[in-house]
Amino acid sequence: MIVSIIGLGLIGGSIAIDLRKRGFANSLLGMDANTEHAAKALELGLVDSIVDHYEQLRFSDIIILAVPVDAAIALLNNILPLLDNQLLIDVGSTKEPLINAVNGNEKRHLFLAAHPMAGTEFSGPQAAISGLFDQKAVIFCNAEETDTNLVYLADAMFAALKMRRIDMDAKSHDIHAAYVSHISHISSFALALSVLHKEKDERSIFEMASGGFASTVRLAKSSPDMWAPIFMQNRKNVLEVLDTYINYLYDFKLAIFNQDKERLLFLMNKANDIKPILNLKEKLTVKP
Amino acid sequence: MIVSIIGLGLIGGSIAIDLRKRGFANSLLGMDANTEHAAKALELGLVDSIVDHYEQLRFSDIIILAVPVDAAIALLNNILPLLDNQLLIDVGSTKEPLINAVNGNEKRHLFLAAHPMAGTEFSGPQAAISGLFDQKAVIFCNAEETDTNLVYLADAMFAALKMRRIDMDAKSHDIHAAYVSHISHISSFALALSVLHKEKDERSIFEMASGGFASTVRLAKSSPDMWAPIFMQNRKNVLEVLDTYINYLYDFKLAIFNQDKERLLFLMNKANDIKPILNLKEKLTVKP
Repeated sequence: MIVSIIGLGLIGGSIAIDLRKRGFANSLLGMDANTEHAAKALELGLVDSIVDHYEQLRFSDIIILAVPVDAAIALLNNILPLLDNQLLIDVGSTKEPLINAVNGNEKRHLFLAAHPMAGTEFSGPQAAISGLFDQKAVIFCNAEETDTNLVYLADAMFAALKMRRIDMDAKSHDIHAAYVSHISHISSFALALSVLHKEKDERSIFEMASGGFASTVRLAKSSPDMWAPIFMQNRKNVLEVLDTYINYLYDFKLAIFNQDKERLLFLMNKANDIKPILNLKEKLTVKP
Repeated sequence: MIVSIIGLGLIGGSIAIDLRKRGFANSLLGMDANTEHAAKALELGLVDSIVDHYEQLRFSDIIILAVPVDAAIALLNNILPLLDNQLLIDVGSTKEPLINAVNGNEKRHLFLAAHPMAGTEFSGPQAAISGLFDQKAVIFCNAEETDTNLVYLADAMFAALKMRRIDMDAKSHDIHAAYVSHISHISSFALALSVLHKEKDERSIFEMASGGFASTVRLAKSSPDMWAPIFMQNRKNVLEVLDTYINYLYDFKLAIFNQDKERLLFLMNKANDIKPILNLKEKLTVKP
């Protein structure tokens, strides 16, 4: 199987590592707008060669778009017309704008919008790791609009990445993604900004910060170039969840201001309901 | 050395485990207002016996208060008058109210306000673990008001817990703690509430949530009974950091609403400045 990956960062690179390691891809071609990333990916052996022209992608069985979500739309329109029966998959964090962009395209059936729910706060080809996707979920959006045989091919590829498939329409995907992923990143970025704003003396943060702080602020290390387009594309849903989030923070603020212990306890006990969900999840995703 | 621990939860229990394991304490006495916790701590071997009366604590060399911060103030006033030359340490998350409560007390010199910067999102005696404090910081507040020999004794005890001592006045401690610990908890509680509010269907959270979500929401599992008094006691500082935090969230909201990519990139690039601090920290706290 020949697999081409456009965007050789954390996600694209990690896909490359495991598709090769697990025998799914015999040959891996890569492409990256950042020539340093392309050279690094080649040096690390993530891909066998770097291609320069979209036409060269036609020799692949599968072409994966692992680029920022705004770049994905442009690439989609450039690449789709060149294909005959190859599978084109994007693996970005927002889906509705992409699905709308291919709506009515005569090659629509060659495209699958997929979202592997995995990542780390690191970026670039040197951040790519084996096992990133193991036991995680991959969302297929509007898969009924993709050619059935190509969906089977995508199933085989994500099975090699050891992912569980979930189906969803693009609209629902974007709402859920805002709540279980996008807001976590904004929360973390804003937390880092607050602490850096106050603690001019970095030594205090460094000395005092414990595991709890590190854990909530970890995502603030994420790539701005990747996240800005996600927030822009999922604007409506992200604004909605941001409002909900800010309202709950006001709820805490008011309870603390009023020294209303009952209300504070009520809010935190309600938040504790996340426990069984997280615990069950941990149990299922622990590697054997 | 005889050590008494009042409050046999995550912190008190974890102290007990390592003080015994590392030969610092020969005998450990325990006390807990929750009789189930007391029985469980005894069953788990965290302490050798449970005492019922404050007078019995006088046979200890060190008495540790590891209770919610509101309970600590009441206990302090009950226990301090009974002591001759024993060391009384509290290990809670807020310090100024406690320091004010002992101000002018004729036994003030027997008391040390200390804050070991370590914890997990779990609570109760069964959450106690060995190594919780290793390579973490412990803050001594206003240590110059404590008897010098007793401070040496505290040094020896926290050395057995493998902690680095930092000195700070109680007021500064409470400000820093609001920024590097307390706000992380509110952020996490509010995040859990937002997601639970939207996702009535718990299966969606469970299926889609990836590592990033789990990491930012982890602290929402924390004990409300422990955190309500912390937020109340550190009210002024917590309200200040909450305001800063909400302002940054509004900054994100406005940038997303206005589709202002430049502003979004600016905010996230600034937040990325947390990277070297977290990375250095990880390097230093990794266990050999």
